[in-house]
Amino acid sequence: MRGAVIHAPGDIRFESLDDPKILHPTDAIIRTAVTCVCGSDLWPYRGAEPTEDAHPMGHEYVGFVEEVGSEVTAVQPGQFVVGSFATSDNTCANCRNGFQSNCLRREFMSTCQADYVRIPNAQGTLVATDEVPGEELWPGLLAVSDVMGTGWWAADAAEVGPGSTAVVVGDGAVGLCAVIAAKEMGAERIIAMSRHESRQKLAREFGATDIVTERGDEGVERIKELTGGIGADSVLECVGTAQAMAQALHSARPGGNVGFVGVPHEVAIEGQELFFSHVGLRGGPAPVRRYLPDLIARVLDGRIDPGKVFDLTLPLERVADGYKAMDERTAIKALLKP
Amino acid sequence: MRGAVIHAPGDIRFESLDDPKILHPTDAIIRTAVTCVCGSDLWPYRGAEPTEDAHPMGHEYVGFVEEVGSEVTAVQPGQFVVGSFATSDNTCANCRNGFQSNCLRREFMSTCQADYVRIPNAQGTLVATDEVPGEELWPGLLAVSDVMGTGWWAADAAEVGPGSTAVVVGDGAVGLCAVIAAKEMGAERIIAMSRHESRQKLAREFGATDIVTERGDEGVERIKELTGGIGADSVLECVGTAQAMAQALHSARPGGNVGFVGVPHEVAIEGQELFFSHVGLRGGPAPVRRYLPDLIARVLDGRIDPGKVFDLTLPLERVADGYKAMDERTAIKALLKP
Repeated sequence: MRGAVIHAPGDIRFESLDDPKILHPTDAIIRTAVTCVCGSDLWPYRGAEPTEDAHPMGHEYVGFVEEVGSEVTAVQPGQFVVGSFATSDNTCANCRNGFQSNCLRREFMSTCQADYVRIPNAQGTLVATDEVPGEELWPGLLAVSDVMGTGWWAADAAEVGPGSTAVVVGDGAVGLCAVIAAKEMGAERIIAMSRHESRQKLAREFGATDIVTERGDEGVERIKELTGGIGADSVLECVGTAQAMAQALHSARPGGNVGFVGVPHEVAIEGQELFFSHVGLRGGPAPVRRYLPDLIARVLDGRIDPGKVFDLTLPLERVADGYKAMDERTAIKALLKP
Repeated sequence: MRGAVIHAPGDIRFESLDDPKILHPTDAIIRTAVTCVCGSDLWPYRGAEPTEDAHPMGHEYVGFVEEVGSEVTAVQPGQFVVGSFATSDNTCANCRNGFQSNCLRREFMSTCQADYVRIPNAQGTLVATDEVPGEELWPGLLAVSDVMGTGWWAADAAEVGPGSTAVVVGDGAVGLCAVIAAKEMGAERIIAMSRHESRQKLAREFGATDIVTERGDEGVERIKELTGGIGADSVLECVGTAQAMAQALHSARPGGNVGFVGVPHEVAIEGQELFFSHVGLRGGPAPVRRYLPDLIARVLDGRIDPGKVFDLTLPLERVADGYKAMDERTAIKALLKP
């Protein structure tokens, strides 16, 4: 088969690779239906994370089951499946508590920009659809495997509720999906912080009621103006920088909540400031598996269409162009078709 | 009247002071029934906070209404009242959201170790009992005005629920009251971290099922052993030091919650560590006013007896001895009788 391999920052190659094999009785092999490039793939691409040895890339996937290990009974060859970027047995204490992305047997996916993929912990990770969905639904289901699941988690962690006001910090694919989530959870006012016209447009389409283009203290000031002077009930931090976190914490009202889903890079939170703010804070890698059945159903019945975050579609062999377009911000998110 | 005045670290004097007067139509004057010394009063006493000019002390009180301003209709002269260390109008947006200790008109109490006290925002701050309660109930009601309200908030912020496992970090009066709160909220296992025999005994009396005497990494290890290897559902941090916060964060299970109610002193939380832990974090000055009606009822009907944290009773004029005993840890908390 063939797949994407990073050799060094900026150097993504589409290469011949060994076909994946069942290594453990809990594995499954899937044939990729569609896959994509994630914002987090840009860290090694930009050299913000080191690449010591060349290695495959990709952690988002939907596909057809090719083969299952002897302990996998939940899915069968031929079925169309959606999984999470973090695999989970879905039986350990952390999984039972709903934090499957902290499964005691967790393995993060990392080889999905390829024709075939081995899925560890397949029994607890993969969710099959009743029928093979139409191709027009594949992008939405692919989004569910990471960015939509992560946006949902941001809204969940920020305790978005009916009638509430939510602020979304970050206008990448996750931030845009977070707008969808806030809307689905009943937020009446959804303020998207974005400076990019095409992303503002999609945010509005997804349910944003207000756009704030200012950043930093000015952005916070604008949020306060829009929220009766006290701040928002829920803030969904979908970036991971110190600036984004500060903006999020200062935009929440006393007693409000910040859900943070961008992996924090050099972020430290001052204890006394957090204390006097009364703001609740929760983040982490999204427990996508918890949300899969629900989110798959919402995509299949057309209630949400997170597939719209893919504004560039390429054949899988042009994966390097997908990285380039996202790095240069000419695309929000690149869909890859094997 | 007379009251306590701090002149310098270690120098508390009981002095003649002007009687308090109604300054605003929203004020009330109360005659102190009982008051006490708080763990946080020890910061200036120990020089951990500066004392530039001599000033009165004390923020915990129950008493009899003497006089009310023209806008105060909720309480009448002669009534026995309980309030919070943070005054609130109970009508602003933050109050309506349940965060009265972040009231837009908040004033922190600071003159309560005295015969008479002026209560700002009296209408929204004071709660009167139906009848004057028996003197044996005054210590419990006094505890409600701060330490019991704060312990309750710790359990609430840590989302203690029926059947859960809770860890309490800190065995001061707040930590001990946090044990009561965890028990009332239905925690099945309550682990108190304490090295002091008398405090362990009271913790057990209040509902602690386990005592952990180890601290730091060893303490965390012991908590993990007691919680199936993953940590506790809820951790109530009632100290405020960096060590206590680290111990709290590391003792919570993935997806668990830390409620932190000790004012943080030189505490910074590392973003990526918090992220991968999945732990939710919320703290702040307790919104005691939110809990007052409920906690007063629990004390009056004998369901809880937080007054037991007072293991030293002194006449108000011996207030300096109360500070000394608490500073030397020969008393958990000193009750003062005018």
